Amino acid sequence: MAIPFAERLQNVETSAIRELFKLLGKPGIISFAGGFPDSAMFDVQGIREASNAALAQDAGAALQYGATEGHGPLREQLAQFMAHKGAQDVRPEQLIVTTGSQQALDLLGKTLISPGDKVIVEGPTFLATIQCFRLYGAELISAPIDADGVQIDRLAQLIAEHKPKFVYLIPTFGNPSGGLLSLERRKRVLELAVQHNTLIVEDDPYGDLYFGAAPPPSLLALTPQVPGSRELLVHCGSLSKVLSPGLRVGWMIGPAELLAKATMCKQFSDAHTSTFAQATAAQYLQAGRMPATLAKVRSVYAQRAQTMGDALRRELGDAVSFVQPQGGLFVWARLTGAGGKVADGHVYAQRAIEQGVAFVPGTPFFCAHPDPATFRLSFATAAEDKILEGVARLAKAL
Amino acid sequence: MAIPFAERLQNVETSAIRELFKLLGKPGIISFAGGFPDSAMFDVQGIREASNAALAQDAGAALQYGATEGHGPLREQLAQFMAHKGAQDVRPEQLIVTTGSQQALDLLGKTLISPGDKVIVEGPTFLATIQCFRLYGAELISAPIDADGVQIDRLAQLIAEHKPKFVYLIPTFGNPSGGLLSLERRKRVLELAVQHNTLIVEDDPYGDLYFGAAPPPSLLALTPQVPGSRELLVHCGSLSKVLSPGLRVGWMIGPAELLAKATMCKQFSDAHTSTFAQATAAQYLQAGRMPATLAKVRSVYAQRAQTMGDALRRELGDAVSFVQPQGGLFVWARLTGAGGKVADGHVYAQRAIEQGVAFVPGTPFFCAHPDPATFRLSFATAAEDKILEGVARLAKAL
Repeated sequence: MAIPFAERLQNVETSAIRELFKLLGKPGIISFAGGFPDSAMFDVQGIREASNAALAQDAGAALQYGATEGHGPLREQLAQFMAHKGAQDVRPEQLIVTTGSQQALDLLGKTLISPGDKVIVEGPTFLATIQCFRLYGAELISAPIDADGVQIDRLAQLIAEHKPKFVYLIPTFGNPSGGLLSLERRKRVLELAVQHNTLIVEDDPYGDLYFGAAPPPSLLALTPQVPGSRELLVHCGSLSKVLSPGLRVGWMIGPAELLAKATMCKQFSDAHTSTFAQATAAQYLQAGRMPATLAKVRSVYAQRAQTMGDALRRELGDAVSFVQPQGGLFVWARLTGAGGKVADGHVYAQRAIEQGVAFVPGTPFFCAHPDPATFRLSFATAAEDKILEGVARLAKAL
Repeated sequence: MAIPFAERLQNVETSAIRELFKLLGKPGIISFAGGFPDSAMFDVQGIREASNAALAQDAGAALQYGATEGHGPLREQLAQFMAHKGAQDVRPEQLIVTTGSQQALDLLGKTLISPGDKVIVEGPTFLATIQCFRLYGAELISAPIDADGVQIDRLAQLIAEHKPKFVYLIPTFGNPSGGLLSLERRKRVLELAVQHNTLIVEDDPYGDLYFGAAPPPSLLALTPQVPGSRELLVHCGSLSKVLSPGLRVGWMIGPAELLAKATMCKQFSDAHTSTFAQATAAQYLQAGRMPATLAKVRSVYAQRAQTMGDALRRELGDAVSFVQPQGGLFVWARLTGAGGKVADGHVYAQRAIEQGVAFVPGTPFFCAHPDPATFRLSFATAAEDKILEGVARLAKAL
């Protein structure tokens, strides 16, 4: 029998993704392709102690069904965590826990997107966001970026023209761009929200991974400066990049009415996020280990980013251009074609695999108007000697 | 601003649910209203040892991103677990892990249901199934049940008439009916699937909670007896009722093509189920503790079911009718109105609250044609003295 699948599945093109993952399987490959943190950074002892404390203190709560909105002690800890990051006024009840921030995206799609609705995203943006929103029937509009993040005048035009259901941005060290939206543009985004009465979704899984000075405050933290903007802002956070993706603990802050509907949808999506994982995360945060963990990952990733950037400049010269990342996990680069060198990211990825190094070509990260010269390199998971060897292989593949 | 929610939210009526939950909050209440296992049954020591073993053996795997299909060692353990339950031929790759079996329902909705599609469910059936499928736009058709489960001739008629996308059944100790589909009818269901080329979804979170003799084999375990039926059967399992709901570990077995699409949808729903919870569950199953855990919960719930059944017959007499449950968590009862006693479940629930005992009226469990005389009692979470006191209060509320 041919299974009669739902029509919405026709909205999703997965061949691009499958193609990407096929690149990763070869043995001996140095991979700059992943989008995940280094397992060696995990604070295993801290997490073990936290999970044992959760079971010792209230095993019933840690192992039983929980509230769909999230485990109370975790919501309190996350509100404090947000306060440390500059969003001073987030009360625990203004935040729901999600099964990773991926689920926050899914709940936004389920709650807000009817087939044919328009959503503006950055070009490029997170691959799974594109597919997630398209599954709900969204028509995605691509807002171009430059070295200071999304081009604000173009964004203003696109909002006025398309009247989107919402605008989705990763303003701080985004995947794949690694870019940083300037403070001035952040305020403009909030002003645009108010001016056009348009919801803004700020996805912020990377904001804590800065290498030097702290980045500008999150859109959420800036809402007090733009009257009316708080009720138009949704902020998604995650412990995946800073503590452990395996806990699958994310959160979403937003207008009360939206959180209520998202909670209802979550009830029928997975009832609630694992209370065992939530209670563990709550104990971890409460134990005060996060500042040291953040200091460690910042320092390690900063060193790797520097090593990769220096090597790229030294070995690839004017064949590629990129902005040296100030945080996050990624270098977003562009083949210049200088000296007749390869200028297509897909072709380059194939040649690189033959030389024993993997990365992700940039095209799939665009919902429209792809720039075929782009590609994404992660510096997070390879040790420095591997980074040097991998970049040498990249040079050979040019 | 009025947030412009998606049209699909209009398909869901949540006031019935909110009303139910309001009943549960009063202090001093003896609650037969819950749908969850007793926290006192949790094998806390076993779970602690399992999670510590998961971190000791491979912390990287337990805390990192994992495959969307599920953590390899857990898929192997669950395949063995299914084999012990009579489904001998389930290979690990024929099973995907879900974030509780609620997510299996959500993925079935996302994968299969286009707005306007018809789905047949039992009348009554699991409340969150009704809402979950309606969110995807399903038109639900109610197939009546009797003491042997879904009425098979009526089901055959409904399939022929409505040509549903699929049929959703909880054949073994279902929520709320507590009923048991007879062996003969199980085979007929599989024959109907083949005859009408119709997918059958078997939701089986309660099958292990039997009190005396084991129930008939699951539909999945019977598929070898009905050629062609295996490719039309989806089986959903869960550790929530037998080990811990807080782990949020469920699974889905089904045709390869369907699992591939469900996996793609899951990628954009939550990326994967908590690897920390999955690795813990895998270690728990591998440690061989499950048989003793099952023996314990069966014995405790059997005693409570007997106590509740005896008390209901003794104290409420001919004012209610019910089938003594042979497993699961629930007594599904019907007010007879004998002797002019209360005959409406909602009215009775209000009177019961005034007497200090809570349960759930039956109406919301029907997607259509509700029987207002029905109500659901859980015997799982109250100790036997509380059961006796609660039933005495029920008698006063008649």
